[in-house]
Amino acid sequence: MGSLGVDDFETVERELAAPDKGEVQVRNLWMSVDPVTRLRMNRNDDQNIAPPAFALGDVLDGGAVGEVIASRDPAFAIGDLVQSWLGWREAFNAPASSLQKLDPGGLPPQSFLGAAGATGLVGYVGLVHVGRPKDGEVIFVSSAAGAVGLMVCQMAKAMGLKVIGSAGGPDKIALLREIGVDEVIDYKAAGDLTAALTAVAPEGIDIYFDNVGGEHLEAAINAGRPSARIILCGAISAYNGSEAPSGPRNLVLMIGKQMRMEGVTLLAQLDKMAEYRSHLASWISQGKITWRETIVEGIERAPDALVRLFDGKVIGKMLVKLA
Amino acid sequence: MGSLGVDDFETVERELAAPDKGEVQVRNLWMSVDPVTRLRMNRNDDQNIAPPAFALGDVLDGGAVGEVIASRDPAFAIGDLVQSWLGWREAFNAPASSLQKLDPGGLPPQSFLGAAGATGLVGYVGLVHVGRPKDGEVIFVSSAAGAVGLMVCQMAKAMGLKVIGSAGGPDKIALLREIGVDEVIDYKAAGDLTAALTAVAPEGIDIYFDNVGGEHLEAAINAGRPSARIILCGAISAYNGSEAPSGPRNLVLMIGKQMRMEGVTLLAQLDKMAEYRSHLASWISQGKITWRETIVEGIERAPDALVRLFDGKVIGKMLVKLA
Repeated sequence: MGSLGVDDFETVERELAAPDKGEVQVRNLWMSVDPVTRLRMNRNDDQNIAPPAFALGDVLDGGAVGEVIASRDPAFAIGDLVQSWLGWREAFNAPASSLQKLDPGGLPPQSFLGAAGATGLVGYVGLVHVGRPKDGEVIFVSSAAGAVGLMVCQMAKAMGLKVIGSAGGPDKIALLREIGVDEVIDYKAAGDLTAALTAVAPEGIDIYFDNVGGEHLEAAINAGRPSARIILCGAISAYNGSEAPSGPRNLVLMIGKQMRMEGVTLLAQLDKMAEYRSHLASWISQGKITWRETIVEGIERAPDALVRLFDGKVIGKMLVKLA
Repeated sequence: MGSLGVDDFETVERELAAPDKGEVQVRNLWMSVDPVTRLRMNRNDDQNIAPPAFALGDVLDGGAVGEVIASRDPAFAIGDLVQSWLGWREAFNAPASSLQKLDPGGLPPQSFLGAAGATGLVGYVGLVHVGRPKDGEVIFVSSAAGAVGLMVCQMAKAMGLKVIGSAGGPDKIALLREIGVDEVIDYKAAGDLTAALTAVAPEGIDIYFDNVGGEHLEAAINAGRPSARIILCGAISAYNGSEAPSGPRNLVLMIGKQMRMEGVTLLAQLDKMAEYRSHLASWISQGKITWRETIVEGIERAPDALVRLFDGKVIGKMLVKLA
């Protein structure tokens, strides 16, 4: 492991042949930039992890939205909007079966990479299916101004929870207040996180949605009420370090409090997309969900966009506009 | 925190008055010696943990079985066998409502402190209700020759699981083989625990029943298959140290593997005792469950019994015979 830099990337140009029978040629319009891409750059021999690690020299991949520019499959026509797992390239040929046709339904195409796509879905599944919130409970969300965090905060508010959001710096804190988060913690200014969390949740917390790991996780275990749930969704504090981070030193508290901690990853959850989008449409129509995007343009700037995910300054969903 | 020694205890004698109306006087026959008693000696301001910490000077308590020697409540008669939470004393007066009458049903009285009591119940609830095992799955049990571990190994075998048990030293390993554990790991001789675990479970593990925390927990996360479950039941490696132990450095793997980790403690589970005892009776009659006890005699040796729980040499349930 170690810090990621733009020099770790190489951009290569390849001639794109015409699509074979059953294939579709797509020009990407937008690609998603996600922390998991960094995680997949760590060497890992564990075969049980999804998605798998990249080998050195692999072309990266990730969520993308594009338009069909040639098709040799009857299900796709030129001009169709499609979603794929083939980001990190400007155009590609792929079997029709690997593409999903998108009906934007009034939403901008790139939202299917964020709020209306993977980002929102993983937040929804974590909050609802893993967290199993009850009305009036208290949830703590870390990286709350990040792509997943913003969605989780707003969904939790829509469900009647008291929401405590942690983020770093005044811009993010202002955004959290703007979207209606009940209590905010600027972790860069807070000092002891357990004390900061206990101050705004003297009764303790019922759910912690973890996007960062590290000290936030430890504070959440300290502040957990009996039967509290922790959704492990990301651990940015662990992705970019040069050595394995130490885990929470207070895990033993989970025994006496009968707490539950559970990992949620996107790939196993795609079957819940329809359920999520139906809730999302209702929340959007009620004005309960908005989102933020940080956009850079051009594939040559994609490596920098990924590097920037870890500098703590990005607000909302990081996207690269490719065309 | 720090290492516990017999000098940290004081034995006091007190005159026992006659019981008041509604009270019962009990002479303890057996008391249970449990790791949680050590944990409750650590200072802890967290109000959300059960059972609560002892204050300096408190009389300890814990599970006990005794006989009624005087009664001012119509529900209890002299000679009745009763279970209480008032161990660590030779005799006591207590409200009748705090006592549970025992029908030994052919089992020795002290078994209600171990296999047929709290020890077996916490293992059962952890294995069945938290672990939710499926036939043919692979379970890893640490401190497998301890009181809880022995029960979990045998229950898991009775349920059709492949059982891997870890214990320290040849005597414990021999015992594990004797009760039918499929694969054994002598952790004192094994070196790298992840390698040792992967060697006997090349396909990975589905359930880890954690009695120790520390390196065993880290190895279990490494070897976990997708959707693996970890039952946090004890963390002996963390109870007796002079500083907070570092947590598992690989917690981030739980995300990609969608693993679940959940604490189980006795107090919230007493309502499942009847369900457990009915399974236990059936397993005993089929010869599928036996147990081991380590017995010391006399309350003056109880502190030493507790200290010995952490020296890694005790096999099965540690009990003090009081009368």
